[in-house]
Amino acid sequence: MSTVGNSTNIFWQECPVGRLERQKLLNQKGCVVWITGLSGSGKSTLACSVNRELYSRGKLSYILDGDNLRHGLNKDLGFKAEDRTENIRRVGEVAKLFADAGLICIASLISPYRKDRDACRAMLPASNFIEVFMNMPLELCEARDAKGLYKLARAGKIKGFTGIDDPYEQPLNCEIEIKQNDGICPAPSAMAGQVVSYLEDKGYLHDN
Amino acid sequence: MSTVGNSTNIFWQECPVGRLERQKLLNQKGCVVWITGLSGSGKSTLACSVNRELYSRGKLSYILDGDNLRHGLNKDLGFKAEDRTENIRRVGEVAKLFADAGLICIASLISPYRKDRDACRAMLPASNFIEVFMNMPLELCEARDAKGLYKLARAGKIKGFTGIDDPYEQPLNCEIEIKQNDGICPAPSAMAGQVVSYLEDKGYLHDN
Repeated sequence: MSTVGNSTNIFWQECPVGRLERQKLLNQKGCVVWITGLSGSGKSTLACSVNRELYSRGKLSYILDGDNLRHGLNKDLGFKAEDRTENIRRVGEVAKLFADAGLICIASLISPYRKDRDACRAMLPASNFIEVFMNMPLELCEARDAKGLYKLARAGKIKGFTGIDDPYEQPLNCEIEIKQNDGICPAPSAMAGQVVSYLEDKGYLHDN
Repeated sequence: MSTVGNSTNIFWQECPVGRLERQKLLNQKGCVVWITGLSGSGKSTLACSVNRELYSRGKLSYILDGDNLRHGLNKDLGFKAEDRTENIRRVGEVAKLFADAGLICIASLISPYRKDRDACRAMLPASNFIEVFMNMPLELCEARDAKGLYKLARAGKIKGFTGIDDPYEQPLNCEIEIKQNDGICPAPSAMAGQVVSYLEDKGYLHDN
C-alpha cells in the first residue's frame, strides 16, 4: 500500500499478460515518437506519414495529436504556462500507456518547453522516447500559416503564441532532426522514411 | 477553427490511416469493457482473466486500472467527489483513445456514481461501451478485504469509502452482470468467459 500524490491506499495490479506478450502479438516494440516544433513546421504531416508507412509494414501505431486531445482529455486546459505543462504531462502519461500496450505511439504537439519534454522522456524506460525535432525556420512556418494563426498572433489577437510572443526551446539532444536541405523541405515520405529507418535500426519493428 | 473548453484555435487533424484500418490489422473491433463494482468485488481479477483469455485468442486488449492510473495520469487527483469525477472522466477519455486505436480496452475502477459512468458511455459510439457490473454483496467484499481497506474504513481511518460511508450506485442498464450463483462466486475463468462470449456474439473479435 502506498501514498501517491493526492491518493492513498493505492495498490499496483500486475497482470500475467504484459508488455512483452503484447509486443509478441504485434511483432513490434512499444515506444513513443515525440514530434516537437513550431506551429506550421509539419508535425501533423510527419505524424500521418509515419503512421501510414508503419501501417503499410503491418505495424500498429497511434497518433496523439495535441490539438485533437484538447477536444477530449485536455479540454479543461488552456494555454497559460501551467496549463501547457499539464497538457504535455497528460499526453506523456497517455503515450506511456500506449507504449506499454505495445504500440508505436506518435505524439505530435508543439511542446515548446524543454523541461516539459524532458519530463515526458523521464517517464519512459531509456531509449523508448524518440524525440523528433521539426527544425523549420520561423519564417517558413509563418509564411505557410495554414491555420492563419501567425497572422492572428502578429495582430495581437492570440496571446502567448509560440515563436511570436512565447519562446520555443529547441531540443538539445533529440534523436532525430528534420530540416531543410539547401533551403528545400524534404517531402513527407522522405521525412517519414527518416523516422521509420530509425525505428527499424533500433529494433522497434520486431518484437525481439 | 473552433473553441473547445478553455482552448481556442484548435483544429481537428484527420489521418488517412484510421480506426477501420487499425481494426483490420488487428482483426478485431475497438471497444471499452468498463468493469464497475465495490472494492474487493473482483474487478481486477476479472480484468486480468479477460485480458488473458483474449490474448490466448490472439486479440489485443489493454487494462486501464483505476489504482494504477493514480500513479501516473491521475496522480494529481484525490478521492473527493469532484476528483473522483475527473478521475473517471480522464479514464473514459483515455479508454476512448484505446478503442479508437482498435484495442479492446478494459477499464477497471470502482466508478461508484452512475452519472460518471454514463458520461463515459456518452463519449463512445453506441454499443462500444460495455458496462460490466460486479454485483457482489458488500458483506462478501468486506469479508475478503484483500487490501485491508474495509477494516480501515470501519475504523474511520479512511473517509468516503465506497459502500461504507460513500454510496455505490448500481448500474440500471449494464450489458453484463456478474453475480453469485446460489451463494457461490463464479471462477475467474467463468466470469471471463461470460465477457468474452459477449464480445464474440457482438462481433468484436473480428474486424467485420
